[in-house]
Amino acid sequence: MSLSYSQINKLPPRISVGEYAFHRLRQLKVLTIFGLPGEFSMPLMDKLYKVPGMKWAGNTNELNAAYAVDGYSRLKRLGCIITTFGVGELSAMNGIAGSFAEHVGVLHIVGMPPTSATTKQLLLHHTLGNRNYEVFYRMANDITCYTTMIVDTDYCADEVDMCIRMAWVKQKPTYMGVPSNQIDLEVDSTRLDIELNLQLDSLIENANIRGNDDLIEQILDNKKQDIQGRIQEDLTKIILKRIYESRSPAIIIDACVSRQGMMRETQLFCELTNFPTFVTPMAKGIINEDMPNFGGVFTGSISSPDVREIVDFADFIIVIGCVLEEFSTSSFHFNIKPKNRVLIFDNSVKVKNVAYPDINIKTLLKNIIFQFDQSNINYSFERKMDIQIPKNQITRDQLLRQEWVWGEFSHWFQPGDIIITEVGTSAFGIMQTKFPKNTWGISQALWGSSGYSLGACLGASYAARELEAEANIYGASNKNSLSHRVILFVGDGAFQITMQELSTIIKADLKPYIFVMNNQGYSIDRFLHHRSNAKYYDIQQWHYLSLLSVFGATDYETRKIVTMGDLQDMLADRNFAINDKIRMLEVMVPSMDVPQAIIDKWQREKEGSNIINENDQPHSTETTNSDLLSWSESPLTELEPDRKKRHL
Amino acid sequence: MSLSYSQINKLPPRISVGEYAFHRLRQLKVLTIFGLPGEFSMPLMDKLYKVPGMKWAGNTNELNAAYAVDGYSRLKRLGCIITTFGVGELSAMNGIAGSFAEHVGVLHIVGMPPTSATTKQLLLHHTLGNRNYEVFYRMANDITCYTTMIVDTDYCADEVDMCIRMAWVKQKPTYMGVPSNQIDLEVDSTRLDIELNLQLDSLIENANIRGNDDLIEQILDNKKQDIQGRIQEDLTKIILKRIYESRSPAIIIDACVSRQGMMRETQLFCELTNFPTFVTPMAKGIINEDMPNFGGVFTGSISSPDVREIVDFADFIIVIGCVLEEFSTSSFHFNIKPKNRVLIFDNSVKVKNVAYPDINIKTLLKNIIFQFDQSNINYSFERKMDIQIPKNQITRDQLLRQEWVWGEFSHWFQPGDIIITEVGTSAFGIMQTKFPKNTWGISQALWGSSGYSLGACLGASYAARELEAEANIYGASNKNSLSHRVILFVGDGAFQITMQELSTIIKADLKPYIFVMNNQGYSIDRFLHHRSNAKYYDIQQWHYLSLLSVFGATDYETRKIVTMGDLQDMLADRNFAINDKIRMLEVMVPSMDVPQAIIDKWQREKEGSNIINENDQPHSTETTNSDLLSWSESPLTELEPDRKKRHL
Repeated sequence: MSLSYSQINKLPPRISVGEYAFHRLRQLKVLTIFGLPGEFSMPLMDKLYKVPGMKWAGNTNELNAAYAVDGYSRLKRLGCIITTFGVGELSAMNGIAGSFAEHVGVLHIVGMPPTSATTKQLLLHHTLGNRNYEVFYRMANDITCYTTMIVDTDYCADEVDMCIRMAWVKQKPTYMGVPSNQIDLEVDSTRLDIELNLQLDSLIENANIRGNDDLIEQILDNKKQDIQGRIQEDLTKIILKRIYESRSPAIIIDACVSRQGMMRETQLFCELTNFPTFVTPMAKGIINEDMPNFGGVFTGSISSPDVREIVDFADFIIVIGCVLEEFSTSSFHFNIKPKNRVLIFDNSVKVKNVAYPDINIKTLLKNIIFQFDQSNINYSFERKMDIQIPKNQITRDQLLRQEWVWGEFSHWFQPGDIIITEVGTSAFGIMQTKFPKNTWGISQALWGSSGYSLGACLGASYAARELEAEANIYGASNKNSLSHRVILFVGDGAFQITMQELSTIIKADLKPYIFVMNNQGYSIDRFLHHRSNAKYYDIQQWHYLSLLSVFGATDYETRKIVTMGDLQDMLADRNFAINDKIRMLEVMVPSMDVPQAIIDKWQREKEGSNIINENDQPHSTETTNSDLLSWSESPLTELEPDRKKRHL
Repeated sequence: MSLSYSQINKLPPRISVGEYAFHRLRQLKVLTIFGLPGEFSMPLMDKLYKVPGMKWAGNTNELNAAYAVDGYSRLKRLGCIITTFGVGELSAMNGIAGSFAEHVGVLHIVGMPPTSATTKQLLLHHTLGNRNYEVFYRMANDITCYTTMIVDTDYCADEVDMCIRMAWVKQKPTYMGVPSNQIDLEVDSTRLDIELNLQLDSLIENANIRGNDDLIEQILDNKKQDIQGRIQEDLTKIILKRIYESRSPAIIIDACVSRQGMMRETQLFCELTNFPTFVTPMAKGIINEDMPNFGGVFTGSISSPDVREIVDFADFIIVIGCVLEEFSTSSFHFNIKPKNRVLIFDNSVKVKNVAYPDINIKTLLKNIIFQFDQSNINYSFERKMDIQIPKNQITRDQLLRQEWVWGEFSHWFQPGDIIITEVGTSAFGIMQTKFPKNTWGISQALWGSSGYSLGACLGASYAARELEAEANIYGASNKNSLSHRVILFVGDGAFQITMQELSTIIKADLKPYIFVMNNQGYSIDRFLHHRSNAKYYDIQQWHYLSLLSVFGATDYETRKIVTMGDLQDMLADRNFAINDKIRMLEVMVPSMDVPQAIIDKWQREKEGSNIINENDQPHSTETTNSDLLSWSESPLTELEPDRKKRHL
């Protein structure tokens, strides 16, 4: 007979609920916990050290920690952050909201004052001074899918389980407040011998999970499963019919594919149907870009002509892992006509305008694949869309331009890479690259919080190290398993926002490549909004490459990349390609330059449509095409002298 | 006939509401605006540059900006921060909550998506993807005293005025959402010719200020003023009676004295009565510490024996500018018996247990002073409490200890200094110092968010420069007006949280003294909570003194202070005392050392009372006095070797 979890780990019959929570996370391979210590969270953190294999990241601030846990979770499906009451949790709020918007599973544990303080209404520090202890908990409600406080002796372990299950299944943040005196509530350690049920069907939403009427629940569950089964069958048929009928189809892959862990199913579906396949900016990396039917990035209104030619005239579009049915930024818009679409969201499906809630979409996709019959297909494969990135023919002493840089990087990427891009110009630049097989892309395209990427780089680096270690455990057959290089592209403006997290990366001995794209300020805004040179786009210029040493790194490499020759030499260097140390690379790009894609597309949009005007600022609408042209034609113009002055 | 504001500034008859808001701020001498640019806030920021004399600080992130505006407002009574929808405003939330808790007047302007986007329910970036555009606005409700959105063409200027007036009078944050298409709503520039009414009485709370029934309002106002007048009279008599009757009185000064701008009245009151006077930690700096009746800092349960002797046995205690009637931290508690107290809050008064709302407390204090008759006093002045800080007699080569350091600094302070202390050990250390006349103290004792002080240092430095410039304008008689040195004491752990704001200080050419008290981690937590050496108290060690150069400073001074000799030499250096450049000083203090005050008081509390136990963690209650003694007796013990390892 094999040993149970509690036996293997030699747990006593009763353990503290704090320890229990960390055992549960460990069972899901969530091994690194992010956050900062605080008066009310320290007793909980002490439990962390009691669970073998668990690590404390110890971030430099809570917002950075929230970005880090988000990056970690995107690779491991779940992450955990611990903050302290009030001051700590509020600092993390923007990061947690980002995880909510972008469907990332995060357990946010907040160390709260002891229950005696709240019942006695003590005027504590870290409160607003108005005896309102629930205000932060209430605020969290809007940016989490489940909130709870550990106050009930009997059901505290149920609550822990529920928080973890909801975060895992729903891929949204959950909030668990833990009063500092409740950490030691005892629970049966044998609970850990039964794995958490992580099926969507098992979550009885909004139901009171406290109660022992297991039988009723089971009956309800079974009934629910029956219904679910029938809906699954129907949907499979409906979607297959659409697939077969279509003469000009398109597949769009969106981010929930990776969130719901169905990359393999999705890949198979794209290969089986052979339909033209595109990814949204958030989904780049999910699909093998070597596929002949892979057509690049779909950016809605500003997609390249090749992409628009197919998507705009498709008679059937299936969006797998759909995050939003529409999307608007100042630079592009998604808007697919309802008539022709099937939207597969994270746990629901929409066919035309009919919505099907509570669908296990991984099962659905599997069903579609199992029942798929190639002979019914009406679409005839016309041409190979295979994307090739041409080699630049720029002379070595030429200063860098965004339009050349990304092509060079494209050839340097290798399978297994985890490529993180900040939401500024880098996120646009990366669309021009081709990812090798098994590459992960991370970018916060929807929430779009500047500074996210460095925190995410820390989290992803921790996750990559754990993934490599896991692969090694599974023995010799995996000897050639992928090493994961973590590669970050971040503008100088965004880097400054969260820069101290570099120190945490160094502290943990992680080894990412950090490319700081130095364009002297907020260039994406310079371009997209006013195409002006307003002083508020400028930032203080730093000696970025000194930071590794200042933060205590000893084994590292830095390079300043000014010319195409510098860039080519670096990327051709075989030693450089091996991620054996932390590297920081300052890539000098012009302050008034953006990736060619943005210039082209913006111009096209201005000429061809007026969608943009409806949610544009007065300034932008006043801008004429000639303004834009002069901006984009002379992006290397020397800045006027007074930009050097730092006083406004 | 003198020219009106609109005439002097040659304003056209109609100006944009965006410009109008900045003119209003300028009229109140709020000349520096904090924040970061964002897509939705840029159109508003362009208006800033149209108003002469206004400056944009351009912070490195929103949390730092929120701390900065708080520091600025503490010196100028009002500050303004601009952030962008969602990502920006949520990042600032912890800082705004701090201003709410600590009674600091801040106008938070949030650049929002255009109204067309919200009415059409576009799925925009920076949203949660659920078409909920009001969620952030709603969250702000709990941490502001007034929230509004600029959407109404007719009353937009009224709303601007209301936000500013509420923030000024209530000394709390207000929230003003400005959709990007509303910036150019036009308002009459002649509105600016009438100064804002900043009297408490003028705020008709919760009333609909939109409407032209001025007459009704006036009548209501007059009636209200009548009633207010009578209550003022009654209260003055009641309080004077208590003052006269008392034989063992005490005055406690709290932070709302400076928030409500009544330092001079309060000083006069203390001098007139000659009653023993104490300050709370948040109020240090408000009262002239050279007064013979000044008795030091009142820290409730852990006050020094001299202070407790008076306060504990007082038959009458008047708290002026009271923030909270009670207060609890893990280290100390305020709890004054209702029977003997008069609490003068920011805009209300409590005598015994009877509350008087809506009181203009500055007027009240003036009335008390005017009617005060020395001959009625029963208290006889017994002894001079004059606080003297002894000179240390420590040998020069001795390594630093907290108990010596603060005494040295005490002798170095000079009139006009603005002294900012982080909430860790520094906030305790500063209590042991004596401030010269006209010194400002800034510390976030109630909200207690680590990292606050560096942001506040930026804001205070901007304010100090403006205050000096204002003083110079008022001509020759003020030639000898004070120069304001800004002096920051911050621990290394807290410094890391917000460290990039150092760059903004450099960018603005500000010249504070930044003392980084390097005790290798979170020492206050090490001591107060577990008195243990848990790894989560450690932080990555940086080369702090290199940061000024890395961030682009050219004219600066750095010193590393290791021995008492180093410290004494630095403080004796006359050039060092002149704030002609930015200075960063790394003061090496032992990792397991805290100011003597904390050790003494903690020990006394453990022996003498059990108040602390009721909101203590299980760990702390297990700690015995002997643990504590061994900790405090051997604070210089070498750390165990594994602390050097950075992997947890």
